[in-house]
Amino acid sequence: MTAELANNSTSEPVSIFISAPGKIILHGEHAVVHGKTALAAGLNLRSYLCLKEKDSGRLHLNLPDIDLERSWDVLELQEQFRDLLNSDVMEVKPSVEIMQRLRLFLGYSDTETTKRLAVMAFLYLYLCIAGRNGKFPILDTLVSSALPPGAGLGSSAAFSVCLAAGLLTWAKAIIPLSSSDNTLDWSREDMELINTWAYEGERVIHGNPSGIDNSISVHGGAIEYRQKVITPLENMPELSILLVNTCVARSTKELVAGVQRRHDKYPKVYGPILDSIEEISQECKRTLQALKTGESLDKDGAFKSLGELVDINQQLLYVIGVSHPAINNIVRSAAAYKIHAKLTGAGGGGCVFALLPPDIPKDSVKALQADLFRHNYESWITSLGAHGVMMHRSKETLLGDGLLLPESFLKYA
Amino acid sequence: MTAELANNSTSEPVSIFISAPGKIILHGEHAVVHGKTALAAGLNLRSYLCLKEKDSGRLHLNLPDIDLERSWDVLELQEQFRDLLNSDVMEVKPSVEIMQRLRLFLGYSDTETTKRLAVMAFLYLYLCIAGRNGKFPILDTLVSSALPPGAGLGSSAAFSVCLAAGLLTWAKAIIPLSSSDNTLDWSREDMELINTWAYEGERVIHGNPSGIDNSISVHGGAIEYRQKVITPLENMPELSILLVNTCVARSTKELVAGVQRRHDKYPKVYGPILDSIEEISQECKRTLQALKTGESLDKDGAFKSLGELVDINQQLLYVIGVSHPAINNIVRSAAAYKIHAKLTGAGGGGCVFALLPPDIPKDSVKALQADLFRHNYESWITSLGAHGVMMHRSKETLLGDGLLLPESFLKYA
Repeated sequence: MTAELANNSTSEPVSIFISAPGKIILHGEHAVVHGKTALAAGLNLRSYLCLKEKDSGRLHLNLPDIDLERSWDVLELQEQFRDLLNSDVMEVKPSVEIMQRLRLFLGYSDTETTKRLAVMAFLYLYLCIAGRNGKFPILDTLVSSALPPGAGLGSSAAFSVCLAAGLLTWAKAIIPLSSSDNTLDWSREDMELINTWAYEGERVIHGNPSGIDNSISVHGGAIEYRQKVITPLENMPELSILLVNTCVARSTKELVAGVQRRHDKYPKVYGPILDSIEEISQECKRTLQALKTGESLDKDGAFKSLGELVDINQQLLYVIGVSHPAINNIVRSAAAYKIHAKLTGAGGGGCVFALLPPDIPKDSVKALQADLFRHNYESWITSLGAHGVMMHRSKETLLGDGLLLPESFLKYA
Repeated sequence: MTAELANNSTSEPVSIFISAPGKIILHGEHAVVHGKTALAAGLNLRSYLCLKEKDSGRLHLNLPDIDLERSWDVLELQEQFRDLLNSDVMEVKPSVEIMQRLRLFLGYSDTETTKRLAVMAFLYLYLCIAGRNGKFPILDTLVSSALPPGAGLGSSAAFSVCLAAGLLTWAKAIIPLSSSDNTLDWSREDMELINTWAYEGERVIHGNPSGIDNSISVHGGAIEYRQKVITPLENMPELSILLVNTCVARSTKELVAGVQRRHDKYPKVYGPILDSIEEISQECKRTLQALKTGESLDKDGAFKSLGELVDINQQLLYVIGVSHPAINNIVRSAAAYKIHAKLTGAGGGGCVFALLPPDIPKDSVKALQADLFRHNYESWITSLGAHGVMMHRSKETLLGDGLLLPESFLKYA
């Protein structure tokens, strides 16, 4: 790979295109709260950033997915946040004080909505990263996503990762490297810097996130997470999946509290169930790695095992009380086509994924999608083990890469 | 209690009425095969024996439930099995040789049907027990049962217990004691003798049974069984239940083998699930005993726990692959009325029971029974922790005891 500044090497206004994946929890949701392992993998439904520098006008943020459009006078920002100009982006700032000032500046009370949190995260990253050359730039910022928001698929992390990567690239704090004809990425150190800032963005939105979502969105592939330690999984094969959104809203907090309550009442009954889920994660990890590395492996047998583990875990998640009639319906519909599905994330609604082994009849998947559609469930055929954050040379190359681009991005970018 | 020979004290032909309960597994089915605890309780659906001595005619066996009626010439039996006359019924005979001779006498091949096994068990017990006075008596023997056969409810054990108790009583090897106005039972030693012979009857039918079914049918109440040791549970409260027959036939052998197969493939995943089931049994035992003995206990809370444990275990039995769509349907129907139900026994069909706490609205139970009836499922409101084998003074007292007497018994006794 050769260092390359993309379309940033001329004096023309800079346009930066970035995309970053979502994530799903393969196994270990809820058990992870009780010290067990969670396996998470990059989901190839991505968020997309288009960052355009302008000579005049206002700093502009457009998030069409949540119907948000805001703009600010850059001179006013310069006035209010002068101390952040020329700051060294390599040193991540403690965020509490700046967040307080941001809240004041924006006139936000404590109660924060999705829109306000998105604005806060954007302005926070912009102020900390983009004032490197002694002034704040005038940027048109568009982020839109193929990820449904609030469905536990890491859409906020993908948002933060896109912003961090875009702003750091714009500020030349990181240097894009050619990775394919159409895409660029960054050195390992630069990726770590993106991840650090993305985590700061996640903190603005979520308070005290685990760091799983931003790590996967930056690095792609899959990770294992246990007792606050994130370990990348080597040799994650790309897996085709069907992702289904129940569109049932739920409170992760209440679901976690419910499991805790049941566990407190019958610790000896629920304890072993969480142990069993731990072993499902371990067995899945071994099977995935064998699938990627094992040459003489019985691939059909490995996919059969992955499906069985999905079934057992879904049933155990049902036992610990985090399923939902909508989830059960989707799982049953899938089972009718011999497709193995489980909830992913907090449960109680949210999303369900089904593994699609290579030999699965395409007609079965189509028929299942039609059944789901009849019951008003949205579904996507996509893949796990997605490539992490990357830069795209242009809007045109994005179109050619077979990605599920959100319509709003095509409209505004 | 005073020793009393019931209606056996005159020289008139003897009529002996005996009943013995079935059983259900409360918790621990399948786990018990892997060394865990099973809790089993007497089920107040009973089998009924009417034994009448005659001066002339043939030895007669009538089992109307399985449409079987057979008779034998007593002199011919005397000829063939002369060595068994005057035998000491206190010493239980090894059965293999006698069974071979019986098969020959009856002209049975190796392949044995329910009818043939019932005839074998009857004749085996008759020959070993009833020839005590130097000749075989001419008996009219009627056994009929409120227990559906082949549903895992211990109907064959209740059959053997009735026969053993009736024949031992007829032979005056055991002495009935007055226990209530209408019923009699026996001393602890005599009950053990009934149990020993009943187990022999069970061996004729099942080959190598655990001994749980006959123990409960003799002693009533509840037992815990673990690694071939049967321990009676002190302080078993009587629990009202709804018993539902799926009428789905299943092979216990295949279901056990299926669990074994899954356990062999993922021992670390299924092992903790069986551990969890063990803890459900222990928790249920503690709760039952607290319910019976705990004066200051929160009874509603205890019944709530019993229901929750039933739910969790049903779900874990689903996970280990021994549920069945019919079972799932019944469990879901019950859940719609906030009634907690689980399969009992081998699963894959067979029976489901639901706990009926004292405060359950009668209308809910009625509505559930109506729902079940609409789906062609037979159901009975009955109780657990039933009284073990007992003798009834007459047919009339049986009618007055509020028992669910089978119609066939009323017709023929």
